[in-house]
Amino acid sequence: MDEFMQLAIDEAKKGRNQGGIPIGSVLVKDGKVVATGHNKRVQENNPILHGEMDCLNNAGRIGSYRNTVIYSTLMPCYMCAGTIVQFKIPKVIVGESKTFDGARKFMESHGVEVVDMNLPECIEMMEDFIREKPELWNEDIMELE
Amino acid sequence: MDEFMQLAIDEAKKGRNQGGIPIGSVLVKDGKVVATGHNKRVQENNPILHGEMDCLNNAGRIGSYRNTVIYSTLMPCYMCAGTIVQFKIPKVIVGESKTFDGARKFMESHGVEVVDMNLPECIEMMEDFIREKPELWNEDIMELE
Repeated sequence: MDEFMQLAIDEAKKGRNQGGIPIGSVLVKDGKVVATGHNKRVQENNPILHGEMDCLNNAGRIGSYRNTVIYSTLMPCYMCAGTIVQFKIPKVIVGESKTFDGARKFMESHGVEVVDMNLPECIEMMEDFIREKPELWNEDIMELE
Repeated sequence: MDEFMQLAIDEAKKGRNQGGIPIGSVLVKDGKVVATGHNKRVQENNPILHGEMDCLNNAGRIGSYRNTVIYSTLMPCYMCAGTIVQFKIPKVIVGESKTFDGARKFMESHGVEVVDMNLPECIEMMEDFIREKPELWNEDIMELE
């Protein structure tokens, strides 16, 4: 297992153990971890803190993102993908996209390299969560009436 | 002047008076203000708190955004536009897009209605800011080397 993806999975589990949505993220710059984060919709009553956003929030103002890679246990949604494009983060490595296909094409159309590791551990974690808390999941991806 | 846009401009000025980036936002649901916000990159050392994001953050978990309109003194960037698309906010009203043309086409391609009021007050506020603090502005839109 990639050590940075392992950290992202650890973050996702941390979120799950807090009663939150199990998605974790890690920002790496020049080969070193800058920040980690996880989805905090439940914990902070905050709709914008997806895993990737929490991670970028935790990183603070780091200047250029040119030499960064962002890891996420799940394919980014349009909010997180738009942020990746705006911040000019050149590469995204995700744990899986089976449970949510997100905005891969949008990122690729803006020159972002997207790698999907298709990890059974990540798929299982999301499938368990979606089965257990479907309303919370639908709220997080805004599949609401 | 539209009362909600006036509130967004008031938010932008609040940010400016704090030494921050003068961009404000208001979320309206069913014709009533849900939350206001302004860019807090400087104030909270936070790259994700653009005006629109701070406003959505302040609104908390409100369920569906179907009957909402988001106001911003400036055309949304890809981060904020991606969030608007993901949250299914159907309408965006902006003060101007002369100083930053943002991601209008992206939003429109996803069915978001975008109205540009092209207000001299908003244009002047941004032009003054960009002239006074070009490095900070370039950091906020990630025009960094």
